[in-house]
Amino acid sequence: MTERYVMRSGGTGRVIVARLKPGCDLLHSLQRIVEEKGIRAAVVLSGVGLLSRAELRNCKTLPDKFPITDQNRSFQSFDRPLEILGVSGNVSMAEGKPLVHVHVTLSYVEDERIVVVGGHVTEGCAVFGFAEVFLLELTGIEMVKVFDEETRTHQLFA
Amino acid sequence: MTERYVMRSGGTGRVIVARLKPGCDLLHSLQRIVEEKGIRAAVVLSGVGLLSRAELRNCKTLPDKFPITDQNRSFQSFDRPLEILGVSGNVSMAEGKPLVHVHVTLSYVEDERIVVVGGHVTEGCAVFGFAEVFLLELTGIEMVKVFDEETRTHQLFA
Amino acid sequence: MTERYVMRSGGTGRVIVARLKPGCDLLHSLQRIVEEKGIRAAVVLSGVGLLSRAELRNCKTLPDKFPITDQNRSFQSFDRPLEILGVSGNVSMAEGKPLVHVHVTLSYVEDERIVVVGGHVTEGCAVFGFAEVFLLELTGIEMVKVFDEETRTHQLFA
Repeated sequence: MTERYVMRSGGTGRVIVARLKPGCDLLHSLQRIVEEKGIRAAVVLSGVGLLSRAELRNCKTLPDKFPITDQNRSFQSFDRPLEILGVSGNVSMAEGKPLVHVHVTLSYVEDERIVVVGGHVTEGCAVFGFAEVFLLELTGIEMVKVFDEETRTHQLFA
Repeated sequence: MTERYVMRSGGTGRVIVARLKPGCDLLHSLQRIVEEKGIRAAVVLSGVGLLSRAELRNCKTLPDKFPITDQNRSFQSFDRPLEILGVSGNVSMAEGKPLVHVHVTLSYVEDERIVVVGGHVTEGCAVFGFAEVFLLELTGIEMVKVFDEETRTHQLFA
Repeated sequence: MTERYVMRSGGTGRVIVARLKPGCDLLHSLQRIVEEKGIRAAVVLSGVGLLSRAELRNCKTLPDKFPITDQNRSFQSFDRPLEILGVSGNVSMAEGKPLVHVHVTLSYVEDERIVVVGGHVTEGCAVFGFAEVFLLELTGIEMVKVFDEETRTHQLFA
């Protein structure tokens, strides 16, 4: 079986354009924006800007059986200028609250060479200068994450 | 001449939110979703998740004249956990059938360092845990690829 | 204070689908498209394709105080095939004219290994074969950049 999925379709609601200001926390600010606007379902359309610090989470090993836990993960800190090349992710509802889940692609310069890193955004990504993030609200679709037996984690449309 | 393009404008249709399940093939699943929903024109808005395997295609040399062929390309396999940092691409019609064309940016961890890779997605990219992909259907626009004399390949609006 | 931002919300207008042709300049072409279509506010939804040349700008040092200037930046040229993995960015109005601001993520092959680079797109990124770029026009929102006291640069909603 090579095709396995669940899906829903909806419509387009508001587009939220946010400029995050110097020194703010990327994830905290997005979470606050979503709460302030009452957004329950959204997709991140785009993001550009600059960070002075990043805390990224990646998966380094696969567990023999689900779920993936922090033992399978690697956490890296970067304390330097990092351009935001892209932001991916979405907003869903988990345990009654809006959940912002974002991955970033970032670039920095070392010995005059560009290095690109990325991963799951955790607390501790600090904006320098600005970051512009665009969210598209979704209508007519319940983006809810509930416990999924197969993966032993909360998942969309489980 | 530094500006050369063809373009069309359209409107926004349905947003398709898909959660791909463990073990599925990324490209096959997207192709099946598009067929099931009868989508003829779409853009990939965002994607996050995890792969356990990737098969990526990149261009390593430029031909003296068009078209680009597999002799110009490099194929890499990755058999390890890879975070999906971003998914780009679109759905058009080619030879009467919907064609899903996607590029991915992926990260993995080696010796506690993050490595980012990417390329054109071919058959063989396997989802681990989940992958969430968002498509925006386009309306009022014919996204058709036909043979283009200049590039000697099928191209949009040729 | 970990949350700091300004934001606006708007609606969705036209989707512009552009296929950039061989040899064109990526930034110049996008700029021309935006002018031709009379776009004053937009977000880049997605981009794929191939470049034969790239001129990227990154931030390598943080100034003690704003603004960031070219002394803080690093400029890299690439003269080889580069897959476009992603395009992020937006269109706003600055000094009465539409301003296209885009970041790209690119991959190339060296010694059969994939290398990913990226940064702010400047003049000199040349399309090879094709590049497909999708823009979503925003309605009901003034995307204007004016001088911002805090960052000493032009910023959205300042």
